[in-house]
Amino acid sequence: MGEAALTLYELAGADDALRFSPHCWKVRMALAHKGLEADRVPWRFTEKQAIAFSGQGLVPVLVHDGETISDSWRIALHLEERFPNRPSLFGGAGAMPLARFINGWADTALSPAIARVIILDVLERVHEDDRAYFRSSREQRMGRSLEEVAADRPANLAAVRQALLPVRRALAAADFIAGAAPAYADYCVFGLLMWARCISPVELLEADDPVFAWRDRLLDAFGGMARTSPCA
Amino acid sequence: MGEAALTLYELAGADDALRFSPHCWKVRMALAHKGLEADRVPWRFTEKQAIAFSGQGLVPVLVHDGETISDSWRIALHLEERFPNRPSLFGGAGAMPLARFINGWADTALSPAIARVIILDVLERVHEDDRAYFRSSREQRMGRSLEEVAADRPANLAAVRQALLPVRRALAAADFIAGAAPAYADYCVFGLLMWARCISPVELLEADDPVFAWRDRLLDAFGGMARTSPCA
Repeated sequence: MGEAALTLYELAGADDALRFSPHCWKVRMALAHKGLEADRVPWRFTEKQAIAFSGQGLVPVLVHDGETISDSWRIALHLEERFPNRPSLFGGAGAMPLARFINGWADTALSPAIARVIILDVLERVHEDDRAYFRSSREQRMGRSLEEVAADRPANLAAVRQALLPVRRALAAADFIAGAAPAYADYCVFGLLMWARCISPVELLEADDPVFAWRDRLLDAFGGMARTSPCA
Repeated sequence: MGEAALTLYELAGADDALRFSPHCWKVRMALAHKGLEADRVPWRFTEKQAIAFSGQGLVPVLVHDGETISDSWRIALHLEERFPNRPSLFGGAGAMPLARFINGWADTALSPAIARVIILDVLERVHEDDRAYFRSSREQRMGRSLEEVAADRPANLAAVRQALLPVRRALAAADFIAGAAPAYADYCVFGLLMWARCISPVELLEADDPVFAWRDRLLDAFGGMARTSPCA
């Protein structure tokens, strides 16, 4: 199966090498977990035409042997289904719905908290063609100007650390959310931390936080793929 | 195995029949899932001596054929291990750590949010011998008077509904958090809603909330065990 043709459309910043989308990071970790490599195509928010073939306007988009799949969760399910003999992303059918819950938690509780810390850093590092789109779409979503959202950084940072409580609780019992080894439940949380790491100089975690050590383990996974990835 | 001797020490209110502990509810649902019945012994916060044999001072405490297990999570693991031929609480070894995460999410994110809504109702309905203990232990934990905690009920209620976002997200894909059928990941969230239902007249959920319909399904499970349980 080394010959599977995989192309991943990934959000890029002003710098082509800067790939900071949390959802693209989930997919990159999932691909690595399955031992797969994809051609990684940089894409910007305003290049809707370039992924129009996917029937929607957001990345990640994966093209696998001519088949197109969008949305990080659906891509993970696709990889699990199509590469069943490689390491499982979920650890069984009973675990998949629970990983879906954790992915939903990451996107609805953790992601908005992180966004409030890093949003101006994102604005600064997206491609200049994307800047107006990024500001207006995010301000509409958040109901305030980005500057207002980011104004109280100490409080926003404290909220991120508070939001990570369930991760901390899980890590009191095992090295990874998924247990002794990482799986998609880990990657969907880690992807959000990679978003922050790639795009912002702010350190979200304190060095003595068990989440810090867990992030280190995942930065080192797959030959240090995440650790050596370009950051702003 | 119908002859397993099981005794469950459960928190009771001023009224003996009022069993409102969220963690005891997790265990009751887990026992029902396994098709087990336990003798249910009422216990109050100040009756530390009655459960001193367990080596700690909180319920639930389960005594199973002379073996004592405390802590709802450890009880769930015990039931899964000791009754392997009955319906699984986790749906496989890969799912157990993820259920642990969801349990941790329920206890660290949802539970404090619900507590802020119902705390004065709990105070009113605990046994009079427990009232001073309850107030002082909770005020110490929350760093404010219970009246201050409960002051802004509309905001506290909105925070509960916001905290339930990951559950809502999961229920967009399946009838239960665990998928097509309920499992411990559902019960550890449902237990917190039973806490509120048993002790408070406040309705946490709006009728058109998918979480409302999910709660209904679990209220009806096991012959309506939760629905017919005494409420204050």
